Amino acid sequence: LGTCSGEKTITATLFPGDGIGPEIAKSVKEVFKQAQIPIEWEEHYVGSTVDPRTGSFVTYESMESVRRNGIGLKGPMTTPIGKGHKSLNLALRKELGLYANVRPCLSIPGYKTRYDNVDLVTIRENTEGEYSGLEHQVVKGVVESIKIITRQASSRVAEYAFHYAETHGRKRVSAIHKANIMKKTDGLFLQCCREVAEKYPNIVYEEVIIDNCMMMLVKNPALFDVLVMPNLYGDIISDLCAGLIGGLGLTPSGNIGENGLALMEAVHGTAPDIAGKNMANPTALLLSSVMMLQHLGLHDKAETIHKAILKTIEEGKYLTGDLGGSAGTTEFTKAVCHNVQ
Amino acid sequence: LGTCSGEKTITATLFPGDGIGPEIAKSVKEVFKQAQIPIEWEEHYVGSTVDPRTGSFVTYESMESVRRNGIGLKGPMTTPIGKGHKSLNLALRKELGLYANVRPCLSIPGYKTRYDNVDLVTIRENTEGEYSGLEHQVVKGVVESIKIITRQASSRVAEYAFHYAETHGRKRVSAIHKANIMKKTDGLFLQCCREVAEKYPNIVYEEVIIDNCMMMLVKNPALFDVLVMPNLYGDIISDLCAGLIGGLGLTPSGNIGENGLALMEAVHGTAPDIAGKNMANPTALLLSSVMMLQHLGLHDKAETIHKAILKTIEEGKYLTGDLGGSAGTTEFTKAVCHNVQ
Ligand SMILES: CC(C)[C@H](C(=O)O)[C@@H](O)C(=O)O
Ligand SMILES: CC(C)[C@H](C(=O)O)[C@@H](O)C(=O)O
Repeated sequence: LGTCSGEKTITATLFPGDGIGPEIAKSVKEVFKQAQIPIEWEEHYVGSTVDPRTGSFVTYESMESVRRNGIGLKGPMTTPIGKGHKSLNLALRKELGLYANVRPCLSIPGYKTRYDNVDLVTIRENTEGEYSGLEHQVVKGVVESIKIITRQASSRVAEYAFHYAETHGRKRVSAIHKANIMKKTDGLFLQCCREVAEKYPNIVYEEVIIDNCMMMLVKNPALFDVLVMPNLYGDIISDLCAGLIGGLGLTPSGNIGENGLALMEAVHGTAPDIAGKNMANPTALLLSSVMMLQHLGLHDKAETIHKAILKTIEEGKYLTGDLGGSAGTTEFTKAVCHNVQ
Repeated sequence: LGTCSGEKTITATLFPGDGIGPEIAKSVKEVFKQAQIPIEWEEHYVGSTVDPRTGSFVTYESMESVRRNGIGLKGPMTTPIGKGHKSLNLALRKELGLYANVRPCLSIPGYKTRYDNVDLVTIRENTEGEYSGLEHQVVKGVVESIKIITRQASSRVAEYAFHYAETHGRKRVSAIHKANIMKKTDGLFLQCCREVAEKYPNIVYEEVIIDNCMMMLVKNPALFDVLVMPNLYGDIISDLCAGLIGGLGLTPSGNIGENGLALMEAVHGTAPDIAGKNMANPTALLLSSVMMLQHLGLHDKAETIHKAILKTIEEGKYLTGDLGGSAGTTEFTKAVCHNVQ
């Protein structure tokens, strides 16, 4: 492994995932090697059969690996088919206590969309809200779902958002809500955000109703900096923001837990139709690996790789099909490796 | 009143509303007069004090007027201040049983946004879902909101959406949901949509997860035609769509109830800062009045006014401040009246 002499090697868990997962994971491994990142990968396969020790599709070894290493990178995973099976993404978030989902949305200079210079970060509460799983039929033809908001989870994600803003040179945190309708649940969420905001006098705090937020985002995304919100709004808004810069194939994502535990992931699908055909674009996983390096404090290394990815896309010579090119995953990866130098 | 001889006069309820409401309502009245629309207005003021007979801010006379006339037009209204007061918009929807909220989003040729040729319609379930008002604290620091989905309301709005598609020359209905998470509530909503879809073999039916829908909308709104969805998603998506064509100041809206009852409304705010200053843009209320005429079957009249509004904006000589011009509400209205001829 090409580590810099003198630097401590870090062990990180890698879940290549399904479909195009192994190919894009390979791309990350090659770029890391080229950039002499002092990381040793511990690869785990997750999915398709239940581990009797965990009662879940996530194996005991996988969970232990992430917990022990404190850091991981995850490709896309197929949700096991059949009634009542939770998505593996959700299972991992839940079982590892990954309470904040972080998505920086940064325009990619070489990839033109309708929006220039998007630069915002969505921070989504990742454990409760509409994702409680509490649902039932009241009487025939009448069903209900229960949205749970707790002070603990709301304060925790608000704290993360403000801390993130402060440590990343961000100026403003916008809490997104619908507290004019859900006065108690979203009201509590806002209450917690306000309390945390008071501890960060240098960060501007504002509250924006979700419908208005939608309109602002599509009209002028520069109005936002860091956005923090309950689970479902986060799911909705983070995909909208990804759309502004080109889609999930170009957007990194991170899931953050207690004590710095972090699992970065590409949030796009497994793309089974092009799996194994050397056609997948590894950008989202590569950018997620950049987030991982930043999270580990390896800022120079992160920047080297980030710049190499952006340069490769801007040069436009070795783009994959989704970006309008005809290069394979391997050619794109080679170009990134070349630009790392 | 300038009615065409031989045509039956229709009585319609008019709620000018608060803030800029009276000015933009006046604009509609003038344009209708100019276009010789056979409508007589029954004006009602709604708001600020509770009518003891209804126990609501909506007076008994207002409700009776809409019920009797079966048709109304509504400007923006200030929500009475104080804890627990429901927005007047919601009160009207609820008390009149206005179960479907319809928003056609059509690009305005004279107003440039990032998106050309947007042409879609959102149809929102308007009575239940996350708007049930059922919320409580479970224990200290833990609150819950209950989302209610019923077969009756879901089938009714689905039926409206497909009927709308068929009678408006639309080809496709997309049901928007998050049934991968809210399997029971959104699952029932989809189930109802599927059942109705079977009765409309000429309309393409598809189901789109809300996060994916967001991304599709900001990347390529032409992918959609008619969208139907539960209440909160409708609130979110309809504002996003309004943003694509320029905002709520340019977007009409209609609320539909049983037996053809309809209340069209401008969904923007009351803009108290510019109220009474002859600065308000009446476009959203004018376009809502066009929807009203269409709903009444007065298609030629609707088209005359619609064209006059679009022409006035395209000519660009008498635009209000929000559209980049410096004309007053009255000058803009005069220009529309001129173009009606
Ligand atoms: C796959 C799905 C369950 C998941 C979610 O809803 O959270 C996804 O949309 C995401 O944003 O990671
Ligand atoms: C004012 C508010 C309560 C309302 C809603 O949430 O429905 C508004 O946003 C709308 O879309 O008409």
